[in-house]
Amino acid sequence: MTGEHDLIKRFFAPLCSCPDDFPAFGLLDDTALIPSCRGGDVLLTSDMLVADVHFFADDPPFDIAHKALAVNVSDIVAKGGLPDLYLLSLALPANLSSDWLEAFSSGLLQAQKRYDCELVGGDTVSTKGPLVISVTMLGDIEAGKMVRRNGAFPGDQVFVSGTIGDGTLGLLARSGELEKTGVKLPRQQHEHLLNRYLRPEPDLALSSLIYRYASASMDISDGLFGDFTKLCAASHVGGIIEAARVPLSDAAASVLAHQPDLLDNILTGGDDYEVLMTIRADRADKFEVEAENVTRIGLVVERVEGVKMLDSDGQPLELAQSAYDHFGDIES
Amino acid sequence: MTGEHDLIKRFFAPLCSCPDDFPAFGLLDDTALIPSCRGGDVLLTSDMLVADVHFFADDPPFDIAHKALAVNVSDIVAKGGLPDLYLLSLALPANLSSDWLEAFSSGLLQAQKRYDCELVGGDTVSTKGPLVISVTMLGDIEAGKMVRRNGAFPGDQVFVSGTIGDGTLGLLARSGELEKTGVKLPRQQHEHLLNRYLRPEPDLALSSLIYRYASASMDISDGLFGDFTKLCAASHVGGIIEAARVPLSDAAASVLAHQPDLLDNILTGGDDYEVLMTIRADRADKFEVEAENVTRIGLVVERVEGVKMLDSDGQPLELAQSAYDHFGDIES
Repeated sequence: MTGEHDLIKRFFAPLCSCPDDFPAFGLLDDTALIPSCRGGDVLLTSDMLVADVHFFADDPPFDIAHKALAVNVSDIVAKGGLPDLYLLSLALPANLSSDWLEAFSSGLLQAQKRYDCELVGGDTVSTKGPLVISVTMLGDIEAGKMVRRNGAFPGDQVFVSGTIGDGTLGLLARSGELEKTGVKLPRQQHEHLLNRYLRPEPDLALSSLIYRYASASMDISDGLFGDFTKLCAASHVGGIIEAARVPLSDAAASVLAHQPDLLDNILTGGDDYEVLMTIRADRADKFEVEAENVTRIGLVVERVEGVKMLDSDGQPLELAQSAYDHFGDIES
Repeated sequence: MTGEHDLIKRFFAPLCSCPDDFPAFGLLDDTALIPSCRGGDVLLTSDMLVADVHFFADDPPFDIAHKALAVNVSDIVAKGGLPDLYLLSLALPANLSSDWLEAFSSGLLQAQKRYDCELVGGDTVSTKGPLVISVTMLGDIEAGKMVRRNGAFPGDQVFVSGTIGDGTLGLLARSGELEKTGVKLPRQQHEHLLNRYLRPEPDLALSSLIYRYASASMDISDGLFGDFTKLCAASHVGGIIEAARVPLSDAAASVLAHQPDLLDNILTGGDDYEVLMTIRADRADKFEVEAENVTRIGLVVERVEGVKMLDSDGQPLELAQSAYDHFGDIES
């Protein structure tokens, strides 16, 4: 195979719906185009994934592709929007095979269908370092309806979607760390955690409920407690989460039964890709009935009361780390 | 310094004009927002730069930042648009200092001012490999005015902006290869080439001329002849460029006087970031008068005549490589 043009033609052009027209012109022009007559606002988000930081270099390329799109979809859904278009840039190590790219492209195609979005541009370059994937995603939302982080108000109820902690436990399982803590899970539960780490599944159906009900919302990517702290800070409020109410999968509950110390990881670890929402108290019951798969876990309070995670006795939990940070430290 | 939040606050939030409002909300929310009431179309483009592929890791961070924006601006201008918003994702090696980031952020700020655009989002992650910079840029253009690659017609005149070949000669100069070929340039000319490699300068003033005059247009990033071949293919036409008409800087002319073999590099090397345009014959004179700094270099012909670069005797030049490819080969 010889270079970028063939690469695009073979693996990426098939991901565009209109080969000769906007938005992507078959990836053969210099830019994509969003026509002016959209009617709604456009949400913009970008996530970068690096091999052996955000996934393992030997993870199946089909799943890596899924994750690269899903983490961006997660941001769009949490704002009350729906995914529409994305640009994909890849820094590819020289030893990557065309089989790898074939499977990666198939994974993108399946994820596009699942999330109803489409590739419109990007770049492919070579690197002597690890594979780097950068996705910029555009989402649709009715004009003026974006749900920000900053709308929570004392008295609002706090909800999360899905279950919490599976992603970070999946990473521990994948790296062998979980076994070292003495936890031995049934195969099915082990697989569940691995899958939740590698294939986050943001729920498009939640999007319209978020824009109809949520006063504030964000996706949980850097740990429940850290992200809740960020939402409270943006809203200038305090907040309380009751740890016992935080929804766990059977697998996470098993882990906790064997190794209670891992509660800290569950509440502060990254890679959940669930949604954290606040709902006005008088609408919370209605929201809970309409939304499937959401759980009420806490309450927004006045700022002076601070942000707390309470144990089952109502005592503040001391958490080792307040937020997982993909970044780590920079020399200062 | 501790993690992504501080990093964004210190180095990147100052690059947003409205800290509490759209489009970027001070980079503190999950997505940016383009309001619906824009009136025009939106152009989308993305370029990824990898240390020691697209720049040297020890190049000044101020200039690297400039290049990362300029190569995207170049795509927007070539379509007849103007830059507006961008998202920036960085994979940062652990040894990068805060001084480096400070200078990089300053470089972004200066480039933003120069090109009248603004940071609205992105991501920062860590990597064990080389620095990777991914920029996605949105441009404004009047509805329906995007200039595609596919509008060239036999009889159209071919124009380029600026001078050709400086970028690729700058890379040869930077890596010491130019000296090895026996070329010794005056210091000022050497500096000129280095600067053209590191700091491409797309010309915003060209944008409105392109959308008023050009039948087809693209930026020249992978070599004049290769990119001309792409434009002709997209337009289903043939084309002729007269090598003797291709505009050269004094520095490039000096190089050629010493080492005529480097004509091939000049005509096919990458990193020009100039614009290649085709103009209907009856409008070409008017365009040439109105546009500063453009040169007529050839003619669009029927497809059957092929795509050719002619020497001063009207004979086809045999070029060693038809297009510079940032990507290189993938194992098949």
